[in-house]
Amino acid sequence: MSKKLTKRGEDYSKWYNELVVKADLAENSGVRGMMVIKPYGYAIWEKMQAELDRMFKETGHENAYFPLLIPKSYFNKEASHDDGFAKECAVVTHYRLKTSEDGKEIIVDENAKLEEELIIRPTSETIIWDSFRKWIQSYRDLPLLINQWSNVVRWEMRTRLFLRTAEFLWQEGHTAHETKNEALEEALKMQGVYADFAENFMAMPVIKGEKTENERFAGALSTYTIEALMQDGKALQAGTSHFLGQNFAKAFDVKYTTNEGKQEFVWATSWGVSTRLMGALVMTHSDDFGLVLPPKLAPIQLVIVPIYKSDEQLEAINEKVEKMMVELKAKGVSVKYDKRTTHKPGWKFAEYELKGVPLRIAIGPRDLENNTIELARRDILSKEIVSQENIAEKVKTLLEKIQDNLFNKALDFRNNLITEVDNFEEFKEVLKDKGGFISAHWDGTSETEDQIKNLTKATIRCIPLDTKDEEGICVFTGNKSSRRVLFAKAY
Amino acid sequence: MSKKLTKRGEDYSKWYNELVVKADLAENSGVRGMMVIKPYGYAIWEKMQAELDRMFKETGHENAYFPLLIPKSYFNKEASHDDGFAKECAVVTHYRLKTSEDGKEIIVDENAKLEEELIIRPTSETIIWDSFRKWIQSYRDLPLLINQWSNVVRWEMRTRLFLRTAEFLWQEGHTAHETKNEALEEALKMQGVYADFAENFMAMPVIKGEKTENERFAGALSTYTIEALMQDGKALQAGTSHFLGQNFAKAFDVKYTTNEGKQEFVWATSWGVSTRLMGALVMTHSDDFGLVLPPKLAPIQLVIVPIYKSDEQLEAINEKVEKMMVELKAKGVSVKYDKRTTHKPGWKFAEYELKGVPLRIAIGPRDLENNTIELARRDILSKEIVSQENIAEKVKTLLEKIQDNLFNKALDFRNNLITEVDNFEEFKEVLKDKGGFISAHWDGTSETEDQIKNLTKATIRCIPLDTKDEEGICVFTGNKSSRRVLFAKAY
Repeated sequence: MSKKLTKRGEDYSKWYNELVVKADLAENSGVRGMMVIKPYGYAIWEKMQAELDRMFKETGHENAYFPLLIPKSYFNKEASHDDGFAKECAVVTHYRLKTSEDGKEIIVDENAKLEEELIIRPTSETIIWDSFRKWIQSYRDLPLLINQWSNVVRWEMRTRLFLRTAEFLWQEGHTAHETKNEALEEALKMQGVYADFAENFMAMPVIKGEKTENERFAGALSTYTIEALMQDGKALQAGTSHFLGQNFAKAFDVKYTTNEGKQEFVWATSWGVSTRLMGALVMTHSDDFGLVLPPKLAPIQLVIVPIYKSDEQLEAINEKVEKMMVELKAKGVSVKYDKRTTHKPGWKFAEYELKGVPLRIAIGPRDLENNTIELARRDILSKEIVSQENIAEKVKTLLEKIQDNLFNKALDFRNNLITEVDNFEEFKEVLKDKGGFISAHWDGTSETEDQIKNLTKATIRCIPLDTKDEEGICVFTGNKSSRRVLFAKAY
Repeated sequence: MSKKLTKRGEDYSKWYNELVVKADLAENSGVRGMMVIKPYGYAIWEKMQAELDRMFKETGHENAYFPLLIPKSYFNKEASHDDGFAKECAVVTHYRLKTSEDGKEIIVDENAKLEEELIIRPTSETIIWDSFRKWIQSYRDLPLLINQWSNVVRWEMRTRLFLRTAEFLWQEGHTAHETKNEALEEALKMQGVYADFAENFMAMPVIKGEKTENERFAGALSTYTIEALMQDGKALQAGTSHFLGQNFAKAFDVKYTTNEGKQEFVWATSWGVSTRLMGALVMTHSDDFGLVLPPKLAPIQLVIVPIYKSDEQLEAINEKVEKMMVELKAKGVSVKYDKRTTHKPGWKFAEYELKGVPLRIAIGPRDLENNTIELARRDILSKEIVSQENIAEKVKTLLEKIQDNLFNKALDFRNNLITEVDNFEEFKEVLKDKGGFISAHWDGTSETEDQIKNLTKATIRCIPLDTKDEEGICVFTGNKSSRRVLFAKAY
């Protein structure tokens, strides 16, 4: 297989598509829009899952599992949710196949038609709130803090590996609370957990903000988002957390008895991140040579490659490396020793570069004599000869340094691509020539937002939470505005 | 909610159904045959998953993920597999819904009919082997050792929580090998992993054996099974591992280039366990008072309940317990301190008994004076007053003892229910009056097996692997037989 990658500068989109496949993260399947997540890609996803799951549990959430299929009528119960979701869905209409009369093929058994069609979950609010009604009786049952790891299906027309697929893996949190404030706090808390994960594990800086009405989740009163910036200057929504008010409680009749004996509807949130984060990870750090992975999410943090001419040399190197491995593993470093004799060192170097392994050690006969190794960093493509002394400690320190460096590099890049503009000509120019986030005044109406979107393809990514009040005039209509919002073209 | 359970002796089946719901493991959903796994049940499943996943990785397997939906035509490719599987399946025929003309309901959009129907995976051999064709070129790519954690759907007509549900969670291993022997070894190795897990974590003794042709997986050349025995004397197939020969390699054209440059079809296995194990766990150990969980899979291994009359007493107890908790957690004990003031100690005792928490500590003012606690074991329902001295060490030792005791108790029970019989009258009598496994000679034909099944509902659970050759005559036909097999009624 040719490992040669298209360069980012030539065609960013093509570079991404090629890289995801060549680095063995994922590939298309025989089913339109559905991907196969390959072992190396899945190993990264598992590391993401493990950290997120730990964070959810530390904030008091428990996992549960709800049915894949949802009766069609459930979608009718919450009107705005229905409008937003129940359209592009996979519909199960039959429950049996049979062999055709000529015995040559399998056909759908028309006698096995379901009375009510079932929808493969595009998200689980409806089926989960149908259970919550049974689980919640009194204030003692609240807050109810549930998370689910699952697959969902949305019949997307244009799909791209990880970024937009007809089936994807995700987690969806669903919580119920006594008061409005408590639910709002929960929604913001989970946005914070997502931001923490994005920045401290993915090394991907994000802006925390609130969505405008146009971009809100179907059924939510407010949607909180974390927005990241990719290397091509396009924004990517990396996670959302929704304050659902009492919409689902009312739709599914979920009431609780208060401490004073009154009956009240509960308040709700939901929040989710998906395998889309894999796409964000790739597009935030990787380069023309392949993946670049932050050490905290790299399945292999360090690879060791022996350089040898004779079997005796390999044996001597093996012996040295085995000792090193013990030390490294004791320090918690995820290390792989690739002593395969079927592949040359140069091939291995290229392979692990492509796969984004943060650190590489090469060790040959001269290193054995000199008590040295060659240590190479993937992030800055540097190489140096260092002593074997305290190698585990050095590796550990370097991995932390790489993690920090990736974050800071991405942060600088992102910060350079936030541009304040004050008129629409400049808005269009910046969008076209520079890209990134445009910080501009907006009059607060959906109409203006729609018009800007139609003219430029840019949407309001968010109203940043930390934005300060500032009098101004809308970049499009000239109407009054009290604060800036962030526009961008987005994935 | 009344926590009163039906007794096992009255109605074992009813006892099981009630227990699963009352202990908060799972419940039925609004979708026929599909269950909701509640947080407490899911926490047990997560512990099972974690151990199995570790075991799979230690034996060289990697996780990956393949599409939920499989094109109908894929099932045609492997004839015997198709016969066995493609019948009772959920069929996706459309990919869009729309609002009806009167605006009152959502209906299926007939313009959005799929050209080829998609089947929700009942198992993933076909879609996975479609990928394997692309992944395998040379002997260097072998063995390919893949596992997937996923949900599957089989349209079962009669469903029971965990034991038989239209959707269930499972893992499915799929491997490809250079030689027949290597694949056979893999199939047996994974049967061994399952047996290890069942006995050492679930404390559930199992018999390792091979299935007869009648009971084999559709598409397999041989199926290896682990068979457990439930408290009502019925057997339960707890996990299976299949040697698939070259059937799928041929159906999906998966060839590799050997070291000598020849093209050969690969050899395959697949193996799986599911949330059915949750049902097996419940039915192996639990009693008339509720769940009994083996410590290694219990989400809470030890619960501490304070006994107090005044706030001052509770505060003094809290202080003591906080210290104890630090010590217990340092020893790796999963401990919960239930100091809720909304529930009485008696209520809590009953609750944790129902939920099968292996150990309970009660601590009151007199215990503070005497430096004691009351320690209660769930498995034998014992209570004793012990000193607080070295409490963590005592708990740790006791948890191991409970784990062993549960296994040994289940083993004695199982061994007492293996009965050798040598004629069909006795066969029917034992089956009716005693139940359990019947060890009997069988002439090796499917016809005899079918006839016995029709007459008695007993099937051949397996040909035990450790069985010894023994001349005899078939319990039904009187024909010659060279070894005994195990019959039982089964779940």
